[in-house]
Amino acid sequence: MSLGVWLVGGRGSVAVTSIVGALALRAGLAAPTGCVTELPGLRSPALPGFGDLVFGGHDPSTVPLTKKAEALAAAGVLPASLLAAVQSDLAAVDADIRPLPEAATQSATAGLIVADLVEFRERHGLDRVVVVNVASTEAVPDGHRAHHDLALLEAALREPEPVLPSSALHAYAAFLAGCPFIDFTPSTGARLPALDELARRQGLPYGGRDGKTGETLLKSVLAPMFAQRNLDVRTWSGINLLGGGDGANLADPAANNAKTTSKQRVLGETLGQEPQGTVRIEYVEDIGNFKTAWDLITFAGFLGTRMRLEFTWHGCDSALAAPLVLDLARLTGAAHAAGRSGALTELAFFFKDPPGDVSHSLADQFRVLTEFVAALDQAQP
Amino acid sequence: MSLGVWLVGGRGSVAVTSIVGALALRAGLAAPTGCVTELPGLRSPALPGFGDLVFGGHDPSTVPLTKKAEALAAAGVLPASLLAAVQSDLAAVDADIRPLPEAATQSATAGLIVADLVEFRERHGLDRVVVVNVASTEAVPDGHRAHHDLALLEAALREPEPVLPSSALHAYAAFLAGCPFIDFTPSTGARLPALDELARRQGLPYGGRDGKTGETLLKSVLAPMFAQRNLDVRTWSGINLLGGGDGANLADPAANNAKTTSKQRVLGETLGQEPQGTVRIEYVEDIGNFKTAWDLITFAGFLGTRMRLEFTWHGCDSALAAPLVLDLARLTGAAHAAGRSGALTELAFFFKDPPGDVSHSLADQFRVLTEFVAALDQAQP
Amino acid sequence: MSLGVWLVGGRGSVAVTSIVGALALRAGLAAPTGCVTELPGLRSPALPGFGDLVFGGHDPSTVPLTKKAEALAAAGVLPASLLAAVQSDLAAVDADIRPLPEAATQSATAGLIVADLVEFRERHGLDRVVVVNVASTEAVPDGHRAHHDLALLEAALREPEPVLPSSALHAYAAFLAGCPFIDFTPSTGARLPALDELARRQGLPYGGRDGKTGETLLKSVLAPMFAQRNLDVRTWSGINLLGGGDGANLADPAANNAKTTSKQRVLGETLGQEPQGTVRIEYVEDIGNFKTAWDLITFAGFLGTRMRLEFTWHGCDSALAAPLVLDLARLTGAAHAAGRSGALTELAFFFKDPPGDVSHSLADQFRVLTEFVAALDQAQP
Amino acid sequence: MSLGVWLVGGRGSVAVTSIVGALALRAGLAAPTGCVTELPGLRSPALPGFGDLVFGGHDPSTVPLTKKAEALAAAGVLPASLLAAVQSDLAAVDADIRPLPEAATQSATAGLIVADLVEFRERHGLDRVVVVNVASTEAVPDGHRAHHDLALLEAALREPEPVLPSSALHAYAAFLAGCPFIDFTPSTGARLPALDELARRQGLPYGGRDGKTGETLLKSVLAPMFAQRNLDVRTWSGINLLGGGDGANLADPAANNAKTTSKQRVLGETLGQEPQGTVRIEYVEDIGNFKTAWDLITFAGFLGTRMRLEFTWHGCDSALAAPLVLDLARLTGAAHAAGRSGALTELAFFFKDPPGDVSHSLADQFRVLTEFVAALDQAQP
Ligand SMILES: NC(=O)c1ccc[n+]([C@@H]2O[C@H](COP(=O)([O-])OP(=O)(O)OC[C@H]3O[C@@H](n4cnc5c(N)ncnc54)[C@H](O)[C@@H]3O)[C@@H](O)[C@H]2O)c1
Ligand SMILES: NC(=O)c1ccc[n+]([C@@H]2O[C@H](COP(=O)([O-])OP(=O)(O)OC[C@H]3O[C@@H](n4cnc5c(N)ncnc54)[C@H](O)[C@@H]3O)[C@@H](O)[C@H]2O)c1
Ligand SMILES: NC(=O)c1ccc[n+]([C@@H]2O[C@H](COP(=O)([O-])OP(=O)(O)OC[C@H]3O[C@@H](n4cnc5c(N)ncnc54)[C@H](O)[C@@H]3O)[C@@H](O)[C@H]2O)c1
Ligand SMILES: NC(=O)c1ccc[n+]([C@@H]2O[C@H](COP(=O)([O-])OP(=O)(O)OC[C@H]3O[C@@H](n4cnc5c(N)ncnc54)[C@H](O)[C@@H]3O)[C@@H](O)[C@H]2O)c1
Ligand code: NA
Ligand code: NA
Repeated sequence: MSLGVWLVGGRGSVAVTSIVGALALRAGLAAPTGCVTELPGLRSPALPGFGDLVFGGHDPSTVPLTKKAEALAAAGVLPASLLAAVQSDLAAVDADIRPLPEAATQSATAGLIVADLVEFRERHGLDRVVVVNVASTEAVPDGHRAHHDLALLEAALREPEPVLPSSALHAYAAFLAGCPFIDFTPSTGARLPALDELARRQGLPYGGRDGKTGETLLKSVLAPMFAQRNLDVRTWSGINLLGGGDGANLADPAANNAKTTSKQRVLGETLGQEPQGTVRIEYVEDIGNFKTAWDLITFAGFLGTRMRLEFTWHGCDSALAAPLVLDLARLTGAAHAAGRSGALTELAFFFKDPPGDVSHSLADQFRVLTEFVAALDQAQP
Repeated sequence: MSLGVWLVGGRGSVAVTSIVGALALRAGLAAPTGCVTELPGLRSPALPGFGDLVFGGHDPSTVPLTKKAEALAAAGVLPASLLAAVQSDLAAVDADIRPLPEAATQSATAGLIVADLVEFRERHGLDRVVVVNVASTEAVPDGHRAHHDLALLEAALREPEPVLPSSALHAYAAFLAGCPFIDFTPSTGARLPALDELARRQGLPYGGRDGKTGETLLKSVLAPMFAQRNLDVRTWSGINLLGGGDGANLADPAANNAKTTSKQRVLGETLGQEPQGTVRIEYVEDIGNFKTAWDLITFAGFLGTRMRLEFTWHGCDSALAAPLVLDLARLTGAAHAAGRSGALTELAFFFKDPPGDVSHSLADQFRVLTEFVAALDQAQP
Repeated sequence: MSLGVWLVGGRGSVAVTSIVGALALRAGLAAPTGCVTELPGLRSPALPGFGDLVFGGHDPSTVPLTKKAEALAAAGVLPASLLAAVQSDLAAVDADIRPLPEAATQSATAGLIVADLVEFRERHGLDRVVVVNVASTEAVPDGHRAHHDLALLEAALREPEPVLPSSALHAYAAFLAGCPFIDFTPSTGARLPALDELARRQGLPYGGRDGKTGETLLKSVLAPMFAQRNLDVRTWSGINLLGGGDGANLADPAANNAKTTSKQRVLGETLGQEPQGTVRIEYVEDIGNFKTAWDLITFAGFLGTRMRLEFTWHGCDSALAAPLVLDLARLTGAAHAAGRSGALTELAFFFKDPPGDVSHSLADQFRVLTEFVAALDQAQP
Repeated sequence: MSLGVWLVGGRGSVAVTSIVGALALRAGLAAPTGCVTELPGLRSPALPGFGDLVFGGHDPSTVPLTKKAEALAAAGVLPASLLAAVQSDLAAVDADIRPLPEAATQSATAGLIVADLVEFRERHGLDRVVVVNVASTEAVPDGHRAHHDLALLEAALREPEPVLPSSALHAYAAFLAGCPFIDFTPSTGARLPALDELARRQGLPYGGRDGKTGETLLKSVLAPMFAQRNLDVRTWSGINLLGGGDGANLADPAANNAKTTSKQRVLGETLGQEPQGTVRIEYVEDIGNFKTAWDLITFAGFLGTRMRLEFTWHGCDSALAAPLVLDLARLTGAAHAAGRSGALTELAFFFKDPPGDVSHSLADQFRVLTEFVAALDQAQP
């Protein structure tokens, strides 16, 4: 199965790390470390291979992919040696990362996006294209009644006043073009009733929201541990220090707020109560892509005795995200091939803020994911 | 169901915290924080209530329970206010913590232990007695061929030369007396083929080994997280700083070795390879019962990028252990009532070094435990 | 020399810990751990003894000192055993902690404060009284031209509209009453040109600002270390998690801002440049008086190699502050006796935000303090 | 002043980082970050410039310097870009790193070392040569009476049985050749009465021992902080995880012991008592040159309240050491030029285990160093 992977934000750190990585995997130059779909229990012929992936995308930036990749290598995100080896393959992708279309109405803009998607699919003769949003995090948008009804939305999109945030417009266009949509960011994406209606009408699956790659990943195993030991978590405070494009963007309080909200869910839902404390994101330019997260958890045990856990996570954000982007593209492509439509709740393993009333325990989510792949496997002809 | 809880090491920190806690719970003076068997999914009428527990034990120490409890209160392990309230109940238990019997042969000593157990069961009119080992950690014993065969063992025990370490002799006597046995320590306990033979012959369940309350508990959720994300854990080094009686005992290299070996299993079995690094235990008298464990984990992600996690756990060892001792007594009592015999592999959730070929993921272990309780529940008349 | 110690905020945590501690030291029940003036190089007959200290103060709260002390004992700040021993001495101080006077104009209020101070000094037959501000941190006040000129200030104080924040009014009244003034908080205190004028006119010394007891104390030794090794500190980010009265007050952004500004000075002045990053204070009620501060410092070394230091400080704020309050009272009393007036720049060792162009290296500050005490010593008759 | 820098262990990580760095500084390709002698208060015309340094040395290894430098670049110790620029200069140094001479007696070996030193000095027309030991740490040697007397030593060296560890033989030969000697390692070096006698007879200065670049550096500012605040440090435990050549060597218990002993001095001498706890070094091959040190300090404050500090230091050992090697060569060269002989106690700032009864506070040591440079400055013609 040849699979297009259309990256909204295709010139960003996560996107470029994903593309370089896929090229390296295809060339047999790297091991698939960090790729969940390569684990023994999840590997499946139902999933397209790394060699079947073809990349394209949208991005307002004009920085060439090779230049961005060099910057990532200088920052220690990509190995310099690898870069040289995939240089020409990477340059070849450049033409498929298109500028962001703009038109007088959002309806017209969506039309241009659809045209780009269709042209990409046809030119490369792809079986299908999965759209993955890895663009900068947006501010939480104001509500709008057109968000709740597809007919209203279609009318509103024809007005000059924009009604959808960029991420949702990309989801809308993806669905019109017959493409599944994954939101790797905390932005709105497909997460509006009107878009869910559209996805189901078109018979398309979608998933999201906000890749789980650091502090929240740890919360998804530590919070269940405290819960299963009947320990009383009193406070959970965290701070994330990061630079890079994502960090700079999150220095904007509105985007920051979208992110920290999505990082909070796991605690309340796992512990059955919200411990005191907050999670903060602080932009420190010099720290770059290697985020440092520090969390302090205080808890009471038997007879009220107070105890503490603290951890420091020093992770390379793009290196943690990229293999999951590849996993999600493969899984969503296979789900589409298997005829799935609507929200893919089985992908909760990957996200901070998954749709539906799902478990926030990573272990539960891993089991669900394993069963999901087994089912795709059996649905194979 | 009235249940005797016979604590080998009944005057130690874990034992006294368990007894004080049970008295406080019975009197409604404390919440069962830390007691796993009080979680919604595990609470069951099949389990004896806290009010049904009657405590006894063996210990060479002659320090009165009330005096030990005061020391624990001064160290912040027990709330001083609570102590006053259970003072007289606690004093009443004192007479049931007996000195360690000694005779010319281990066979004769076992006979005296059996006599103590039977006398305790009859005097209190108990349905059954579970023996729980919370005595000081022993050195790893030399092997002996009598360990592998019950008939050989019985013969050897009648010789003047001791053949079993103390913990195993207690397990042997417990089985003779018709009592299930739990080893909360890394000592030998019931973990010898000859004793397994005896337990099964007597129709008795047993469980262990080494309560999982700190660094290893964290490993049992963090190692699966790395594995499920296909991240390549390269090194895992840890150091535990602790004082208290347990710490002093572990300053002895032989005991220390028993402990650190039991702390290592989870990594190799979960990650499929042994990362570099070791785990150390260091006795620092002044630190007392509030252990500090620090671990550094380094791992490689996508395209080999290096990342790190470090954590500091500041836990009160006895407060973490005591509720689990109560849980184990209740669960094992119920298993005995339900006719279970042999190794209780379903209790792996509680131990660093469980018997059998079980998962070392806490989440898996919790599921198994939940199913175990559900089965006990259904076995109820 | 009998010395009155008048505590503005006399019913707060720092105040009560200081009073209980002084009573315990006088009674020989505790060692002077944390008291700098008891170090070999600083002990001096020029300083009043702990037994010479008599406590009074102002506080709007009406909670009895003994009740506040019990709360501090329950929180682990004071040892419960000690409390019982000083109970009656402490109750005797209660009457000398007066309600906050209020009148139609600030001039009149100052008059009432002066009356309280004079009455206290005379009733106890004290040689002198040092006023120490340990009240809740105030918001940074708006500027006012009367702050710059004593004559203008005296006129403005007679108007109905308040012109001074509470801390500065206390400093003003202290000076009128002939009392030296120390500001242990980041509030305005005596730090206005008009008040400096008054202090010098009255021949009175004053000192401050903001006791240095945690993160900033560490900065005052770590920043010089980096500077002296010619290492290039790139980022320095910190977060302070604390509960307690001080924490609750600092949850107010205005007070918080006063505090974080005073915490920043040391870096810029020691490193010769401001590293990236900020310092944050977060109120987490459940954490209480045992603050946790975490700092991450990233730095570049030889040939640009990047390195990191992180630390976690888990300190009991009031226990760190109280001995310094006693030190400051003794030192300032002696300075007054020796005829010093104006800003006591030699006390920079104690403060986050000291007056004058002083070194921010703790080691330099300690040397200056040692010389200061030696000079007081020689000034003795 | 042209200055030879003769590195014992000239093909090791510290040596090669020092050489590459000096070449880069000479070429204006890097800033002298980490070089103490470039600080405003220490820069002096009395010191030879970076451009005046000429490198040579001894090492049993035959790995070319350029190859070693590539390995250091791959490990992130040296910037790859820099390497290319100094490649040919570095290759030119290679011939001056000589194999370790060996002869029938240590006296004869010393003669060969002297010959190498003299030949190096003459061929390059150097004013003087400073020998710096950066070879692998040795085991603590057995004592020998010849160590205490120069005449005895000279006789013993002529016997077939070796009497000096390698580092001390190098010091002996350096002194014979008229070269000052610096020991950057915890080995014996010049630290024997017989060698001190020789150095003074020859009018040569020497210094050491064991460069202070990580955990001990932090101790030298934190221990004085606790002391100056009269806080009662109860326990200080540390663990150092490192790989690299130095780490592998320290995995040998004897070498490890030499190191940990030298790391302990600062605490006892600064705090006036030895806190409980130990310092450990653990070899973890995969961690490489970027050592991680973790320390836990527990202390009691006012009225006995317990508090804690913990820190994690993540430093690149060679990058921290190399600029100090250059500093030491410059300072010792200048001291020699100024006619200094015997132990240079003023260099305590650089060492874990300095000679003489000196302060272990970094701040004091920095002051002494500043005065030392000022004196060299004034001694200039
Ligand atoms: N571990 C992780 O890296 C991680 C985890 C969870 C979520 N995310 C999210 O992934 C996203 C990408 O992160 P990154 O580090 O690559 O950020 P980045 O700043 O490097 O890249 C974002 C890219 O999006 C482009 N862009 C901006 N607005 C756009 C728009 N309207 N349409 C299309 N492209 C647009 C930018 O030009 C840029 O190239 C962020 O939203 C981040 O929050 C990342
Ligand atoms: N979190 C935890 O506390 C934890 C976790 C896992 C395992 N454990 C194990 O639990 C055990 C008890 O820990 P503790 O902190 O209470 O130690 P402790 O030193 O306070 O108590 C041990 C008691 O055992 C008694 N004892 C010694 N030898 C005995 C023997 N042969 N027979 C009977 N009693 C004997 C001692 O007199 C003492 O009273 C230790 O082996 C420890 O390793 C504790
Ligand atoms: N380590 C430390 O504890 C430390 C360090 C530096 C500065 N400080 C400062 O010391 C002060 C006291 O801290 P705390 O923990 O005792 O706080 P707290 O909240 O326990 O006590 C403050 C007291 O001030 C009283 N108060 C409020 N407004 C007043 C006014 N206008 N006049 C007189 N009294 C007033 C309150 O009623 C309260 O009793 C705070 O400003 C804090 O920022 C403390
Ligand atoms: N921050 C630091 O790096 C630091 C701080 C203090 C002390 N030190 C000490 O500096 C020394 C060098 O550290 P490194 O990281 O460069 O180690 P390394 O293992 O990379 O280099 C040591 C070199 O010494 C050579 N050598 C071994 N025995 C020798 C001998 N007898 N004569 C001459 N050369 C010999 C080896 O072949 C090797 O090339 C070690 O002793 C280390 O403990 C380093
Ligand atoms: Na940490
Ligand atoms: Na830490």
